[in-house]
Amino acid sequence: ELLEFLRIPSVSTLSEHRQDMVEAAEWVAARLQRAGVPEVNLHSDDGHPIVLGRWHVADGKPTVLIYGHYDVQPSDPLELWKTPPFEPTIRDERIYARGASDMKGNLLATIVAVEALAADLGTLPVNLIFLYEGEEEIGSPGLQAFVARNRERLACDVAISADGVMYGVDAPSLLVGVKGMAACQIDLRTAAGDLHSGLHGGTVRNAAREIAHLVASFHDADGRVAVEGFYDQVRDLTEEERAEIAAVPFDEAIYFQQAGVEALAGEAGYSPLERLWARPTADVNGIWSGFQGEGAKTVTPSQAHAKITCRLVADQDPVNILDLIERHVAVHCPPGVTATVRRRAGGSRPYAIPRDNDALKAAGQVLRGLYDKEPLVTRVGGSIPIVEVFKRQLAVETVVIGWSMPDSQIHAPNEWFRIEDFRIAQRAYASLLEALGA
Amino acid sequence: ELLEFLRIPSVSTLSEHRQDMVEAAEWVAARLQRAGVPEVNLHSDDGHPIVLGRWHVADGKPTVLIYGHYDVQPSDPLELWKTPPFEPTIRDERIYARGASDMKGNLLATIVAVEALAADLGTLPVNLIFLYEGEEEIGSPGLQAFVARNRERLACDVAISADGVMYGVDAPSLLVGVKGMAACQIDLRTAAGDLHSGLHGGTVRNAAREIAHLVASFHDADGRVAVEGFYDQVRDLTEEERAEIAAVPFDEAIYFQQAGVEALAGEAGYSPLERLWARPTADVNGIWSGFQGEGAKTVTPSQAHAKITCRLVADQDPVNILDLIERHVAVHCPPGVTATVRRRAGGSRPYAIPRDNDALKAAGQVLRGLYDKEPLVTRVGGSIPIVEVFKRQLAVETVVIGWSMPDSQIHAPNEWFRIEDFRIAQRAYASLLEALGA
Repeated sequence: ELLEFLRIPSVSTLSEHRQDMVEAAEWVAARLQRAGVPEVNLHSDDGHPIVLGRWHVADGKPTVLIYGHYDVQPSDPLELWKTPPFEPTIRDERIYARGASDMKGNLLATIVAVEALAADLGTLPVNLIFLYEGEEEIGSPGLQAFVARNRERLACDVAISADGVMYGVDAPSLLVGVKGMAACQIDLRTAAGDLHSGLHGGTVRNAAREIAHLVASFHDADGRVAVEGFYDQVRDLTEEERAEIAAVPFDEAIYFQQAGVEALAGEAGYSPLERLWARPTADVNGIWSGFQGEGAKTVTPSQAHAKITCRLVADQDPVNILDLIERHVAVHCPPGVTATVRRRAGGSRPYAIPRDNDALKAAGQVLRGLYDKEPLVTRVGGSIPIVEVFKRQLAVETVVIGWSMPDSQIHAPNEWFRIEDFRIAQRAYASLLEALGA
Repeated sequence: ELLEFLRIPSVSTLSEHRQDMVEAAEWVAARLQRAGVPEVNLHSDDGHPIVLGRWHVADGKPTVLIYGHYDVQPSDPLELWKTPPFEPTIRDERIYARGASDMKGNLLATIVAVEALAADLGTLPVNLIFLYEGEEEIGSPGLQAFVARNRERLACDVAISADGVMYGVDAPSLLVGVKGMAACQIDLRTAAGDLHSGLHGGTVRNAAREIAHLVASFHDADGRVAVEGFYDQVRDLTEEERAEIAAVPFDEAIYFQQAGVEALAGEAGYSPLERLWARPTADVNGIWSGFQGEGAKTVTPSQAHAKITCRLVADQDPVNILDLIERHVAVHCPPGVTATVRRRAGGSRPYAIPRDNDALKAAGQVLRGLYDKEPLVTRVGGSIPIVEVFKRQLAVETVVIGWSMPDSQIHAPNEWFRIEDFRIAQRAYASLLEALGA
């Protein structure tokens, strides 16, 4: 079944796969129906179809929303695939295919788990809402509107996102935090137009130099963000949290190789994993000014630009952070330089699931049972906007749990998913639903 | 005659004007012959024709080389011209046409002056070599080779470049210094490839940040170049030189308007004109790294680049300056950052004509006589490579004297040349040749 699902090239970003997207959505809907889900509908008002299933078993039972996505990333560069991306192939107990790990394997595991549970128990331990979208890989543009419009229909007690990653094959992990984001572009001007550097170089401001100074002013010598007030809302790591992170193995040599770097850098006073997972950053994503062509051009640039995204941790607020950046830029602009901060869409708040959340604790118990070891407590440096949408629109917490691995090659050639993890995932989702019903 | 010369669209950079270039060269050659120059040849081995004329009158007399160029800049944007660029039009005692001021008016004035002098005196006060090129506006690629190959043929005692600018209509000036140039590109790398800022932003070096820090390190808070050793070879301005520069009127308000800026900047401790004319600079002509498109992209860039040109003053040497920059970059690169300095062609030494040079003094006398006032002593912040070529290849000094004005719109729409300056230029060149023969 999973191989069949993986054969549908449901690439959401490419318009030539529009019909494949419908086919994949219908495949998921049919599979839900075969599993016994009584209400299954496709909603296409907001883009690629959203598959919505509902299995209400009893009024007194808690309602759990299961989230996943059936769309996949594009498969290029094709020549780097050992076997074709949409012809799933089994080698060494792994399924190689685009979307195997991100996340058709996990999605199908949620359905199979529910089916098995219903067959086993004759009923379900919880009421279920299945919400599978087809636009995760393009930023879920339709889902947020859909959730906002269907808050009552999606009302639930807790959400499970199967779009998750384990720390390793033998390292089960519980994700407890994701960072938020604030994005902006700085546009700077020093003169009405570019000037000849021979005629003006010594007397006027140079936009390329000014943007360099401004960008350099964003960090101090210790790698801390030097924007005044940037850390004011940051909840300091507790000793317990630092111990949890310290318990997660981090091999510098492997990291160097994976990231293609020769040295670490970042905020002084914190370990690499603390910096990655639990400390906010200001990242310069782009900088440009003046002449970029071949050879030399004696121009004094009049305009310059920089793109900045900040990764935020609790309790930082993206709007407040952009206010602080705006003030920083104003304070650091010398006379004769005009700079504006353009705020970009795509901001999100950080999210951390409360550590005493029952569903999180249940997930920990499930992992402990399956692996016979204590799960690691992990976070991600990236953002998972959907959990923040569920929190804001549905007022529920989300347990993110899935069996992608850090080296599963998601978004890259030769993506793989372990057959063993397909089995573990099914057992885990079933056990988690049972625990949530208890 | 000048209007006829200006009607030839001799745009050196555009291949569709190739035949016009030949026509203009032949026009100049014919005009030299009509003036009585006995030997006139066209040389096309190195690109657009070089017009070489020779009028040897007596072995005992000094030989003067007169330099000019008959090519012009492109005329676009055409829609901004009030009258067509190659249909010279007289308005308010000015000739409006592309090339009027830069420099067909001055070139023709040199020929007319020689013709008049010969008619008046029956002979010439000096031996003359006329060297008119057609590639000045594209960097004189052919001329340097031509001069190197023809050093004996071009042997002379002094050169006059008619490709000059006066400080103002009522402000005659003597150019005594031009800056040299050293150009390079810095290429910087922090990782094997671009990284996801959510997965790596807090732990790896960011090439955009590193290039910003590096570029910012090129200057100190006082606007001085912070590259170690940069000023070691700089000849300090004497009190006399500072007084000369201070005597040149500089109107900040007009400068602001012309340059389109709202404030001055640059090296502390020097006046704007001192910084422009007599202090070396390090100009950032371009900087780029990472994402420059619409919206936000959460990338940690792995590569970054900056283009730098330094304007040099005596006795700085471009090769030495690039050595110093290479060392500066090496010293300022933190672990994990690889940076290389690529040296660019187009370097040149600064040039200053000795203040006791007889030709310079003669030019001063000529201006004094024509304007009845003391000429200002000026310099330029740009480079005039040809004077350095004459110095190096022919071992002669060059007096640069011509009647373009700072607001003549050279290289821009509605370029103009004053009819009165066409007359003044003729008188001046004739007087200067007489003085050089005396």
